[in-house]
Amino acid sequence: MASLAAKRVLVVAGIGNGTGTGASTARLFAKNGYNVAIIARGDRFVQGLANEINSSGGEAAPFMVPSYSHDHLTAAWASIHKRFPKPEYTVRAAVFNVAYGVLRPFLDTTPQEVQESLDTNVAAAFSFARGAILAFKDSDIEETNGARGTLIFTGSTRSIRGNVTTSAYAAGKWGSRALSQSLAKEFGPQYIHVAHSIIDGYRQREHRSAEWTDNEDVRLRPESIASSYLYLVNQDRSAWTWELVLRPAHGKLF
Amino acid sequence: MASLAAKRVLVVAGIGNGTGTGASTARLFAKNGYNVAIIARGDRFVQGLANEINSSGGEAAPFMVPSYSHDHLTAAWASIHKRFPKPEYTVRAAVFNVAYGVLRPFLDTTPQEVQESLDTNVAAAFSFARGAILAFKDSDIEETNGARGTLIFTGSTRSIRGNVTTSAYAAGKWGSRALSQSLAKEFGPQYIHVAHSIIDGYRQREHRSAEWTDNEDVRLRPESIASSYLYLVNQDRSAWTWELVLRPAHGKLF
Amino acid sequence: MASLAAKRVLVVAGIGNGTGTGASTARLFAKNGYNVAIIARGDRFVQGLANEINSSGGEAAPFMVPSYSHDHLTAAWASIHKRFPKPEYTVRAAVFNVAYGVLRPFLDTTPQEVQESLDTNVAAAFSFARGAILAFKDSDIEETNGARGTLIFTGSTRSIRGNVTTSAYAAGKWGSRALSQSLAKEFGPQYIHVAHSIIDGYRQREHRSAEWTDNEDVRLRPESIASSYLYLVNQDRSAWTWELVLRPAHGKLF
Amino acid sequence: MASLAAKRVLVVAGIGNGTGTGASTARLFAKNGYNVAIIARGDRFVQGLANEINSSGGEAAPFMVPSYSHDHLTAAWASIHKRFPKPEYTVRAAVFNVAYGVLRPFLDTTPQEVQESLDTNVAAAFSFARGAILAFKDSDIEETNGARGTLIFTGSTRSIRGNVTTSAYAAGKWGSRALSQSLAKEFGPQYIHVAHSIIDGYRQREHRSAEWTDNEDVRLRPESIASSYLYLVNQDRSAWTWELVLRPAHGKLF
Repeated sequence: MASLAAKRVLVVAGIGNGTGTGASTARLFAKNGYNVAIIARGDRFVQGLANEINSSGGEAAPFMVPSYSHDHLTAAWASIHKRFPKPEYTVRAAVFNVAYGVLRPFLDTTPQEVQESLDTNVAAAFSFARGAILAFKDSDIEETNGARGTLIFTGSTRSIRGNVTTSAYAAGKWGSRALSQSLAKEFGPQYIHVAHSIIDGYRQREHRSAEWTDNEDVRLRPESIASSYLYLVNQDRSAWTWELVLRPAHGKLF
Repeated sequence: MASLAAKRVLVVAGIGNGTGTGASTARLFAKNGYNVAIIARGDRFVQGLANEINSSGGEAAPFMVPSYSHDHLTAAWASIHKRFPKPEYTVRAAVFNVAYGVLRPFLDTTPQEVQESLDTNVAAAFSFARGAILAFKDSDIEETNGARGTLIFTGSTRSIRGNVTTSAYAAGKWGSRALSQSLAKEFGPQYIHVAHSIIDGYRQREHRSAEWTDNEDVRLRPESIASSYLYLVNQDRSAWTWELVLRPAHGKLF
Repeated sequence: MASLAAKRVLVVAGIGNGTGTGASTARLFAKNGYNVAIIARGDRFVQGLANEINSSGGEAAPFMVPSYSHDHLTAAWASIHKRFPKPEYTVRAAVFNVAYGVLRPFLDTTPQEVQESLDTNVAAAFSFARGAILAFKDSDIEETNGARGTLIFTGSTRSIRGNVTTSAYAAGKWGSRALSQSLAKEFGPQYIHVAHSIIDGYRQREHRSAEWTDNEDVRLRPESIASSYLYLVNQDRSAWTWELVLRPAHGKLF
Repeated sequence: MASLAAKRVLVVAGIGNGTGTGASTARLFAKNGYNVAIIARGDRFVQGLANEINSSGGEAAPFMVPSYSHDHLTAAWASIHKRFPKPEYTVRAAVFNVAYGVLRPFLDTTPQEVQESLDTNVAAAFSFARGAILAFKDSDIEETNGARGTLIFTGSTRSIRGNVTTSAYAAGKWGSRALSQSLAKEFGPQYIHVAHSIIDGYRQREHRSAEWTDNEDVRLRPESIASSYLYLVNQDRSAWTWELVLRPAHGKLF
C-alpha cells in the first residue's frame, strides 16, 4: 500500500523570471499537495521561487542546469530521484515549459538560431520527456485518475502556425508538438497521459505593452494556465485530452 | 447586488435514456449548486431524472418538447425563464447534447434521413443557441470566471471526420461545430464563452458490446465528460478553450 | 471497346451569372473535349453559356431546375442521361458549384435562412452527389487516370472556418465538406475520385470592390480555379488529392 | 527582354537511389524544358541520373555534397549559379526532397538520431530554402504564372501525424512543414510560391513488400507525384496551393 501514501511530485522545467506559466504551475501544484522539483537554467530566479514555495508551506527544490542538453537534463532527473526517492515519493506530473522564441525574418535568421531553436524546443523536449516517461513507467497506477503520470508540453500559437518572422521558432515548436502526439499514442495504452497545451495569445516579455499587461481581456493569466494543467493531470483515464488550446475572451480564434 | 446572490441555472437539452452525457451533466451541476432545467423529447426519462436530482437535494425541472423544432425550443426557453425568473435565477450554462446519429452507406441514405440529420444536429442547435445567447446577453458578468455564461455543444468523432457510413451524420455534426466556432468568435468579446467538446470514442447505445461497456480503457465515462463541462464553465475568461477533445487512454488519436 | 471511344461528359451544377467558377469550368472542359451538361436554377444565364460553348466548337446543353430540391436534381440527372446516353457518352466529371452564402450576425439570422443554407449547401449536395456516384458506378475505368469518374465540390474559406457573420453559411459549407470527405473514403476503393476545393479569397459578387476586381494579387481568377479542376480530374489514381486549397499570392494563409 | 529567353532551371535536392520522387521530378521537368541541377549526397546514383537525362535530350548536372550541412548546401548553390549563370539561365523551381526517416520506439531512440532527424529534415531544409529564396528574389517575374519561382518541400504522412514509432521522424517533418508555411506567408507577397506536398502512403524502401510494389491501388507512383510538382509550378499566382496531399485511391484518408 506504499503507493497510496507516496507523496506526489511535480517536475517542471523552465520558469523564466518566475512570473509566468512554469512558476504559476509550481505554485499551484504545491498548494495542491505536490512536492515540486524545478529545473532551470541558471539560479537567478529558481532559488527564489523554491524559497517562496517552501515558506508558504509547500515543498520545492531547485535543480539548476547549465544548459538544456541531453546530458544535463539526464543528470537533473537523476538528482530529482535522489532528492525525492521511492517509495516515499512518486513523480506524477512533468511539465516541459522551456522555449527559445526567436522572431526574425527568414533571411536574417542565422544557422545558429535555427540550431538553437531545434536544440531548445525539440531536442531538450526529447530529453526531458525521456526522464518523465522512465519515471512514470516505474510507477504504479494512481487511484484517483487511473494514470501512472501526466506529461505536459507548453506550446503556443507558434506550435500550430508559421508566420512571417517565425520560421525558426515555429519549426521548433511544431517539432515538440509532433513529439507530444507521438508520445500520447505510444504511452496512452500504458496509462501515461501526454498532453500539449497551446497558449494562444501569450506574449514574450519583450513584446508586452503596458496596455496588454493591464487588460485581462487580451492577456492570458499564468494562474489560469496553471489551473488547466492541474485539470489535465486530474482527468481520469476514460476521458483524456491530448491538446488543450487556451485563449483570452477577446482572442482571435484563427 | 442581486446578481451575486442569484442562483445559477444550467439548461441542458438531450438526455437520451438518462445514462449518458446529458444526464451526468445535469447530476454533476446539480451537486455543484446549479438549478437544472432539462429539455427532452418525450417524458419517458426526463421526469425520472428530475425526480432523482430533486430527491438528492438538488433542484431540477423537466421541459418536455414534442420535437426539437425552432418553435418548440423557443417555447421551452420561455417556460424555463418563467420557472427560473430573474433576478432570483440567472442562466449561466447551457449544454446542447442532442444528436441524430444515423449510420448508413451513402446510397442507402434517404433524403429524409439527410433532412432529419440537418434538422436535429444543426437547425435545432441554432434554435437552442439563440435561447442561450439571449439569456446570457441579458445577464451580468459572473465574478468567479468573468463570463456572462457558457454554451457547450456535445460533439463526437463525427464532428471532425467523415467516414464510409457517416455522410448524413457527419454533415450534421460538422454543421453544428461550425456554428459553435462562429458563435465563439462573435460572442467571446461579449464575455460569453462558447465551447465544443469532441467525445472521441463514445458509442451509441446500439453499438455497445458488453466488452466495451465493461472496459474503462476504451469507453468514456459520462461522469468524466460531465466533469470536463464543469471545468469549461469554470475557466476564467483570460484562458478559454473553444474545443476540448476527450478520448480514453487506449483511444486512437486520429 | 466502346468505352474507349465514349465521349466524356462533365456535369456542372451552379453557374451564377456566367462569370465565375462554374462557367469557367464548363468552358475549359469543353475546350478539352468534354461535352458539358449545365444544371442551373432559372434560364437567365445558362442558355447563353451553352450557346457560347456550342458556337465555339464545344457541345453543351442546359438543364434548368426550378430549385435544387432532391426531386428536381434527380429529374435533371435523368434528363442528362437521356441527352448524353450510353454507350456513346460517359459522365466522367461532376462539379457541385452551388452555394447559398448568407452573411448575417447570429441573432439576425432567421430560421428560414438557416434552413435555406442547409437545403442549398448540404441537402442539394447530397442529391447531386447521388446522381454523380450512380453515374460513375455504372461506368468502366478510364485508361488515362484509372478512375470511373471525379466528383468535385466547390468550397470556400467558410468551409473550414466560422466567423462573426457566418453561422448559417459556415454550418452549410462545413456540412458539404463532411459529405465530400465521407464520399472520398467510401468510393475511393471503387475508383471514384471525390475532391473538395477551398477557394480562399473568392468574393461573392456583392462584396467585390473595383480595386479587388482589378487586382490579380488578391482575387482568384475563375480560369485558374477551372484549371485546378481539370488537374484534379486528370490525377491518376495512385496519387489523388481530396482537398485542394487555392489562394492568391497575397492571400492570408490562416 | 533577356529574361523571356532565359532557360528555366530546376534545382532538386535528394534523389535516393534514383527511383523515387526526386528522380522522377528531375526527369519530368527535363522533358518539359527545364535544365536540372541535382544535389545529392554521394555520387552513387546522381551521376547515372544526370547521364540518363542528358542522353534523352535533356540537360542535367550533378552537384555532390558530402552532407546536407549549411556550408555544403551553400557551396552547392554557388556551384549551381556558376554552372547555370544569369542571364542565360533562371532558377524557377526548387524541390527539397531530402528526408531522414528513422522509425523507432521512443525509448530506443538515441539523442544522435533525434539530432540527425533535426539536422536533415529541418536545418538542411532551412539552408536549401535560403539558396532558393535568394535565387528567386534575384529573378524577374515569369509571364506564364506570374511568379519569380516555386519552392516545394516533399512531406509525408509523418509531416502531419505523430505515431508510436515516429517521435524523432515526425518531429523533423513537422518542423520542415512549419518552415514551408512560414515561407509561404513571408514570400507570397513577393511572388515566390512556396508549397508543401504530403505524400500519404509512400513507403520507405525497406518497408516495401512485393505486394505493395505491384499494387497501384495502394502505392503512389513517383511519376504522379512529379506531375503534381509540375502542376504546382505552373499554377498562376491568383490561385496558389500551399499544401497538396496525395494518396492512392485505396489510401486511408485520416
